[in-house]
Amino acid sequence: MSEGPAKSDSDVNGGNNGTRGGCGAAAQDPEEKLLLAAAYVYDAQYNRNIPFETSPQAVRLYYFYNHWVMQVATYICITVDLALAIFEEPAVYQLPFLATSIVEVFCLLAFFGRLVHFSKVTPRNVFWKDTKNICVMVTIFLNLIDLIIYGSLIVAHIPSVRWSRVLRPIYLVNFAESRQIRRAFRSIRNTLPEILYVFLLFMFSVLIFSLMAQKLFESRNFITAEGEPYFQSFLEGVFNLYVLVTTANSPDVMMPAYDFSGWYAIFFIAYIILNTYIFMSVFLAVVYNNYRKHLKNEIRKLAYMKRRKMVEAFNTLKIQEGSEFVISEPTWLKLVKMVAPDISNSHRELLLRVSKEDSQRYVGKDAFIRLADLLNIRVITMKARMHPLECWMPHLYRCAVSRFIRRVVLHKGFIYAFDVVILVNAIFIALDDKNPLVSKAEWVFLSLYVIEILLKLYTYDPRSFFAKSQFWNWTVSLYNSQEILDIVFILRVLRLIRIIDSIQRFRVIMNTLINILPTMLTFCGIILTIYYVFAIIGMELFKHKITFFPENSTEPHAEACGAEVLKDSSFAKSKYCKNNFNNLGSAFIVLVELTVVNQWHVLATGFALVTHPAAKLFFIAFHVVVVIMIINIFVAFILEAFFVEYSLEKSEVETAIEKKIQELGMAVQAGYIPTGNLVDNMDNCENGPGDFGDGNQKGLMFQIASKRYRTVDALLQRMFEAEIPPEDEGPPMEDIMNLSPNDLYIENPTFNSAA
Amino acid sequence: MSEGPAKSDSDVNGGNNGTRGGCGAAAQDPEEKLLLAAAYVYDAQYNRNIPFETSPQAVRLYYFYNHWVMQVATYICITVDLALAIFEEPAVYQLPFLATSIVEVFCLLAFFGRLVHFSKVTPRNVFWKDTKNICVMVTIFLNLIDLIIYGSLIVAHIPSVRWSRVLRPIYLVNFAESRQIRRAFRSIRNTLPEILYVFLLFMFSVLIFSLMAQKLFESRNFITAEGEPYFQSFLEGVFNLYVLVTTANSPDVMMPAYDFSGWYAIFFIAYIILNTYIFMSVFLAVVYNNYRKHLKNEIRKLAYMKRRKMVEAFNTLKIQEGSEFVISEPTWLKLVKMVAPDISNSHRELLLRVSKEDSQRYVGKDAFIRLADLLNIRVITMKARMHPLECWMPHLYRCAVSRFIRRVVLHKGFIYAFDVVILVNAIFIALDDKNPLVSKAEWVFLSLYVIEILLKLYTYDPRSFFAKSQFWNWTVSLYNSQEILDIVFILRVLRLIRIIDSIQRFRVIMNTLINILPTMLTFCGIILTIYYVFAIIGMELFKHKITFFPENSTEPHAEACGAEVLKDSSFAKSKYCKNNFNNLGSAFIVLVELTVVNQWHVLATGFALVTHPAAKLFFIAFHVVVVIMIINIFVAFILEAFFVEYSLEKSEVETAIEKKIQELGMAVQAGYIPTGNLVDNMDNCENGPGDFGDGNQKGLMFQIASKRYRTVDALLQRMFEAEIPPEDEGPPMEDIMNLSPNDLYIENPTFNSAA
Repeated sequence: MSEGPAKSDSDVNGGNNGTRGGCGAAAQDPEEKLLLAAAYVYDAQYNRNIPFETSPQAVRLYYFYNHWVMQVATYICITVDLALAIFEEPAVYQLPFLATSIVEVFCLLAFFGRLVHFSKVTPRNVFWKDTKNICVMVTIFLNLIDLIIYGSLIVAHIPSVRWSRVLRPIYLVNFAESRQIRRAFRSIRNTLPEILYVFLLFMFSVLIFSLMAQKLFESRNFITAEGEPYFQSFLEGVFNLYVLVTTANSPDVMMPAYDFSGWYAIFFIAYIILNTYIFMSVFLAVVYNNYRKHLKNEIRKLAYMKRRKMVEAFNTLKIQEGSEFVISEPTWLKLVKMVAPDISNSHRELLLRVSKEDSQRYVGKDAFIRLADLLNIRVITMKARMHPLECWMPHLYRCAVSRFIRRVVLHKGFIYAFDVVILVNAIFIALDDKNPLVSKAEWVFLSLYVIEILLKLYTYDPRSFFAKSQFWNWTVSLYNSQEILDIVFILRVLRLIRIIDSIQRFRVIMNTLINILPTMLTFCGIILTIYYVFAIIGMELFKHKITFFPENSTEPHAEACGAEVLKDSSFAKSKYCKNNFNNLGSAFIVLVELTVVNQWHVLATGFALVTHPAAKLFFIAFHVVVVIMIINIFVAFILEAFFVEYSLEKSEVETAIEKKIQELGMAVQAGYIPTGNLVDNMDNCENGPGDFGDGNQKGLMFQIASKRYRTVDALLQRMFEAEIPPEDEGPPMEDIMNLSPNDLYIENPTFNSAA
Repeated sequence: MSEGPAKSDSDVNGGNNGTRGGCGAAAQDPEEKLLLAAAYVYDAQYNRNIPFETSPQAVRLYYFYNHWVMQVATYICITVDLALAIFEEPAVYQLPFLATSIVEVFCLLAFFGRLVHFSKVTPRNVFWKDTKNICVMVTIFLNLIDLIIYGSLIVAHIPSVRWSRVLRPIYLVNFAESRQIRRAFRSIRNTLPEILYVFLLFMFSVLIFSLMAQKLFESRNFITAEGEPYFQSFLEGVFNLYVLVTTANSPDVMMPAYDFSGWYAIFFIAYIILNTYIFMSVFLAVVYNNYRKHLKNEIRKLAYMKRRKMVEAFNTLKIQEGSEFVISEPTWLKLVKMVAPDISNSHRELLLRVSKEDSQRYVGKDAFIRLADLLNIRVITMKARMHPLECWMPHLYRCAVSRFIRRVVLHKGFIYAFDVVILVNAIFIALDDKNPLVSKAEWVFLSLYVIEILLKLYTYDPRSFFAKSQFWNWTVSLYNSQEILDIVFILRVLRLIRIIDSIQRFRVIMNTLINILPTMLTFCGIILTIYYVFAIIGMELFKHKITFFPENSTEPHAEACGAEVLKDSSFAKSKYCKNNFNNLGSAFIVLVELTVVNQWHVLATGFALVTHPAAKLFFIAFHVVVVIMIINIFVAFILEAFFVEYSLEKSEVETAIEKKIQELGMAVQAGYIPTGNLVDNMDNCENGPGDFGDGNQKGLMFQIASKRYRTVDALLQRMFEAEIPPEDEGPPMEDIMNLSPNDLYIENPTFNSAA
């Protein structure tokens, strides 16, 4: 409210300058203006951050670009392109080269089409400055070239390598929908220089200890438990000590020297304390510190960007009302209908009430800017309903016996009683089920569960009974099928989780774990990307070198995985033959085992034996990238999530929006369930637009589904937004993109923030 | 300065009420007042926090209690008492029971004496309220009872167990000198409830997965690579899956099922993601969060306590000067001489300059309160000195050739040249030293090093050459001894660290690592305590069950560690026979191996085979206590240390004290060395008291040895103190002791502190 119209206008121009390209004029027609504003709000609501041109044509293309069909299609193409590795040599299911190459060309065309579409939406100078677009284009080109070369060589019967397959994850990372994955990779890239210095110091320490080990043990001629020489060659020593950092060969690597003299143990203990404990913790500290720094910077960018977009939307639609600019109520309603077409009328009415004073017919600037957040809060509209049986036979349903039954079912003791039943059932599952008594007891349990379900159906409305929170009831329905016996076993045991969920103290931890899940998907993306690259390289290097033969195979070297050199190696003795790179699935499982670290040196040595000693470098590289970088980022992320949850539980941060909804007196508190049955009628739009203002509203209530809002990102963003004063519109777009994490640290650290 | 004398007086009484016992009156005589004030300052300076009575007798006993001889004697007694386990059955060096029991009784008497001494220093009600005193008393009593019972049973030839030996670490933890260890244990105890809930959830998940595994694999009758049954019994399954959390049996535990069908891998991968990655990170998050919370609370207590003690000291000595109370200059000088008798006159003069205005003859309250910090800053007094050769033969030493030589040695290129020599030497060490050329090259390197030392001795003052920073030069002196060849090898390689130390970027990381060292000693204490308890229990459970026989032994079961049941077990096959509990040294090494985790299930199974399957509980308990609790606290500590270092590097926090010293223009900046030779004359007190004010001071300079001040504790304390306003004297003593970490979180978290 502190700024005059003149400044506001110049702001719009200033803000648009960067994103306004050559073709098309800005929207002037009211409908087109609305469309443009809706695009801004949409962009702010979902944090998409796609700079688009303001011409009506570009805005329509922007909508089309963000349409869910287009997004799903893009993801399908990415999935198909990545999944091609399943069908290409070495394949899980071999398909002819022609089939896979036609599919690949189709995917590449789709990616190219998506890119062209994006170039029409976004201003030309922005498009060509963005490295991710260039990157995708180069990748498409390289993929095509490689495909053509490989195809022609196949025709000429010359064996070749499809080297460009390692580039495929670039599509997953660089298409605009994968913002979070891209952010994680940016964070990794920014952390690299600092990690590098620690890594060099760490490698220096490993090398020095290797030198010492060689000098100490060389002349002793010890042999290991497997009868191999002990620290005889320098490189072998470096590898052994590097493996010791991962603890995978502890204490075996120490035993020969320790058997000779107890004092040699000091050497290894000193090594482990320094390199395993201290250096690995320092890696975590460096990664965590940088992750936190960059996360904060990105969140700040997002928050400013959102504010900026909402200001643009406001400036597009504003009309003058007295001394200030506002949005008229009809325009506001049309805009919300356009941005969020699937919310109910009563919900929209609620949002309007939150945004304006009762007496006004317009929405002010501050309230308008909050619209994106308002739309993000999932509100469940609920209404009291009667049980169907009550409608059909009210007398019977309302008689004394029926009321008693329902009171019993609603009582807490009923839940506890069935928790006990589940526990007893669990004990019976653990018992030997060949015992006839046990299998008879299974039938008793089954009937008890059926009775429970029937009683609950009788008491609760069937629609609320099958709602998401009642997941545990479903597990019974699959109970008696014989075909999918293994899955049923797992589901039966899952019922036990219900008990945990009923204890308040555990539910807090469980909720935090569940809140972490959405961002875990980002990590799945990162892990998938890196696994894919290593799997493709691994398959090219190691395919068909190691083969798994079933137990009763007649193959001469079946015990040695089909490779004579592996005979008597730890690899063959541990029966690791199925850990190979003969198809994408096997390769992924080997990479999981390498991530877990234990026994990775056995795998590395095995693959080195069947190919070349230098193959160990592949495994060391994987360890450095995945265990030192990625897993530490994962740990940093979980730590951060818990700290944010902890600090919020203490202070009860509530946004102004949530407060306002509660002020209206129509909020259902989370966890509180009124005596009647409430039904979510989110998609039930039969109410007229005016019914909301009618005073009584016949038991209409709103519940904020706040859990969804509680991802770490959203919490941090909310924290940061609470610190931007309402009149601050943030720096201009270009400056926002260039904000550096170091700007955050200008002020002195205080005791509370640093400690 | 904001308070009148009346309020100040009532404060003293209020503050003393809690600590003033029955016997003896407070000091009235000026000498006794000085003694009392000095005791307060001493207590504040070293953060000892021993509440003492104010009677002159108690103050003298307080000094005697804190005398270094008494402290060293206490530590020696604790060490001897703990070391007794080396000589008791099962012993490294067996001593007769009579000898060890006499030594033990002597130690117990010493502990009792120390306790009695402490009870004379501290007010009676405080003494009897303090659990640590009660704890020590009970332990002494139990130790004596156990000793008597065991002794009489030995006389009657009845075998018995010295069960009270596990209590011995209580002395290490509970004697007042081990404040840091006690704090760490307090932090562990406070974290327990929160850890417990996560642990229950975690064990619940392990049990559910075990149930599922049993149902999935029971009927398949798989066998492991060692030919053992696979998930046939429930308890065996729980153990296997618990081991999988520690990754020690990955991927072996998966292989039999995975060989049968690739889909079973999903079960194990899901298990690892949930339990190994997510739950273990949650443990770290919970431990770290609590560690941070309690650390901050303890630091706050310390800071308030220090402030309080300094106020008491001020109130004891204050005289009225105009409208305010001050300390006169002679009193101040006497006090400092009493508190820190070993600092030089010029240093004391510097401190006085820092504490008062030049025109004043007294020290104000604010400046006086800073005295404890002032005394904690180690100031090195330096003076320019001539080279001895310059004194003896000035003509020769100052001639052109000599000057040229010295210029060359002082040049940076000289250091670089010898860094190259060291690197080349390292490469030669790595080469095969049976080669005659290599061993000849060794002589060349040796002569080069000797020349380097001679040149440096010629250029630098011998006293500065042998100072601590020139450590790398020493390594040569041991170079040619044949006896301690192994140590020499290590020292030769250590010279390489010199190269690292000369690169700025690495030095920052190295400095942080070095700053962590003092607090690492605390962790050594904690680890020692817990190892000791487990070692004693382990020795009682497993002594002489497993025996190590040298390679050429004729013992029938030498290969099976002397126990027939171990034949063909993984334990014997891996040649782990020397990993036993047959004496304290072996037990400690086994515990280190268990801490490193890898192969711990092999050790656990081995010891379970020779005793009882329940023996595995001992190893699981060790894992829970050490790996889940202690190692996570260690990681939390390193993370915190790095974060504090990082946040300080950005903001250059400098205390007012350091600034004032620099204002005087007599500070030598760290790293800067003037062209002349500076000699530390800390203990050189021949200067008269007035020489400091004489204007020129003949090149006298001060250097703040700030590194020592940079432990994490001290940094945090400094941060917190910077936030207490100078006039805040903190809450009264009793309230300080009861401050809760939850009080810290009253304010809302901000974006910067939470993220």
